[in-house]
Amino acid sequence: MADRRAERIARLIEPLRVEPGSRVDLGRDFDPRYKADLKKKDGVELLRAGVALLAEYQERLAAQDTYGVLLCLQALDAGGKDGTIRHVMSGVNPQGVKVSSFKVPSAEELDHDYLWRYARRLPARGDIAIFNRSHYEEVLVVRVHPEVLDRQRLPEGVRTAKIWKQRYRQINGWERYLTENGFRVVKVFLNLSEEEQRVRFMKRIDVPEKNWKFSAADVRERRHWDDYQVAFSEMLSATSTRWAPWYVVPADRKWFARICTAAVLAHTLIDIDPRYPTVPEDARRDLLAAKRELEDEAPEGAPEDPYAARHGQADG
Amino acid sequence: MADRRAERIARLIEPLRVEPGSRVDLGRDFDPRYKADLKKKDGVELLRAGVALLAEYQERLAAQDTYGVLLCLQALDAGGKDGTIRHVMSGVNPQGVKVSSFKVPSAEELDHDYLWRYARRLPARGDIAIFNRSHYEEVLVVRVHPEVLDRQRLPEGVRTAKIWKQRYRQINGWERYLTENGFRVVKVFLNLSEEEQRVRFMKRIDVPEKNWKFSAADVRERRHWDDYQVAFSEMLSATSTRWAPWYVVPADRKWFARICTAAVLAHTLIDIDPRYPTVPEDARRDLLAAKRELEDEAPEGAPEDPYAARHGQADG
Repeated sequence: MADRRAERIARLIEPLRVEPGSRVDLGRDFDPRYKADLKKKDGVELLRAGVALLAEYQERLAAQDTYGVLLCLQALDAGGKDGTIRHVMSGVNPQGVKVSSFKVPSAEELDHDYLWRYARRLPARGDIAIFNRSHYEEVLVVRVHPEVLDRQRLPEGVRTAKIWKQRYRQINGWERYLTENGFRVVKVFLNLSEEEQRVRFMKRIDVPEKNWKFSAADVRERRHWDDYQVAFSEMLSATSTRWAPWYVVPADRKWFARICTAAVLAHTLIDIDPRYPTVPEDARRDLLAAKRELEDEAPEGAPEDPYAARHGQADG
Repeated sequence: MADRRAERIARLIEPLRVEPGSRVDLGRDFDPRYKADLKKKDGVELLRAGVALLAEYQERLAAQDTYGVLLCLQALDAGGKDGTIRHVMSGVNPQGVKVSSFKVPSAEELDHDYLWRYARRLPARGDIAIFNRSHYEEVLVVRVHPEVLDRQRLPEGVRTAKIWKQRYRQINGWERYLTENGFRVVKVFLNLSEEEQRVRFMKRIDVPEKNWKFSAADVRERRHWDDYQVAFSEMLSATSTRWAPWYVVPADRKWFARICTAAVLAHTLIDIDPRYPTVPEDARRDLLAAKRELEDEAPEGAPEDPYAARHGQADG
């Protein structure tokens, strides 16, 4: 049963994975409208099953307390990051899930090395951390708007044409270190089409309840669409590694993006296969001794247990 | 003049540097009693000059706000870390110096990747950070006492014989990333002899004011002397890199250890050569305009400046 689920999940996400070492051309290689022969009405059921599976595995992950998982979510505006997090993670115990959103960096953050603010929010063992935007902003928005680099106060020698290749190498090294120490890094790019972004922006303008989600800056940013496609393509090519692969999730259909993101995370957890810790023989003996003591505490003459009484079991 | 100082400093620390790629045998290659033909009475004057130089360069480092410096201090017990920090850094503006001491890790720290707690305390640009013990504990005390590794809750596959080599590589990669982003990493090992440690321990027991510095655990730890010599030798061999070299500072004479540590830090700052930012032409014009406005504010009939009055300059 678990194996059947695992197989289905693997088959679903296989076409979305960026093969390490391959050269990605986003527009050519990945269709934002792809939906793997699924229909929207299957979507609800599949997502429910996926979330249940995530909840089950997260509990085991926390109990084992050996591995941690970091899911990095990247997308252009209106790509559906917030909604995906809400729908995929809402069924999971929030004690084991830490979501960090990275917006404009603070003065303190800008004054440190560029990975500093991300490193502080890394998952603990047993946790799933979700980065809503991540350290990949440092080779995306920073690349498309090099003036952001000015605020990072880098030394002269660093700001050469080679900086993006250097950052890819640094990020790969960092993620490898994390993986080697028991923290799985998995990365999802929600791949939205230019037309679907336009439609979603229009809706955010037309529907008053959605107005707060829109700012004029979003349209200015949209003018850099082609630059972003290049930046994403190069980033996906350079940083999809065997230890921390990228998945390009088709994002024009929200329901499909959510299923796929849940599946990517589930795939990682199934691969970790966390187990409830087994109690060693001597600790087991201690447990049984404790049980006997608890049993002995309740002789016939003992005062009634108020809780048991309230539940009508005082005569037990 | 500055060049003469720089030359003297470079000459002093040259024999202490671990050549990247070389194979260190601590007992054979480095003499804890070495003192470079200096006499203790020269020591006071040299340290004073060194501290003055550090204060001057730290101010420029902070003003330029582009580079940061991380000094890692490692030593066995009674090696003189605390005293060295006090004597070397006391003359420097504490606003630009952040000292972090790493003791037994907290539960939260143990639950993260092993570099997590160190990464949080990295310097900001313009700062000198000093790690009193550092991430090198992760290949020293953790190596000599592998039971500490149990508490780190690493996955099965990580705890093999290769773990130390893997950590050396991870640490080198991390320090390279930091250096590439404008954070200089410089590392000092205060190299104490076994006999001098014995003498200092005896003093801590005999002198009541020093009792607080001693615990019986220190003597238990001393029994691992030879294991530590091996761990230090291998660490120095593997992690002295061209971007973040190790200096083995002879520590049997406290005065000499302090001069050398100041010199290592000074050497790094001289190499960075931080400059006060120059104000661009238009900003300079703004400054002059501001000055004129301030001058115009003080016509003959203006009320007396209370501060100037208090200093007897109201008639100026």
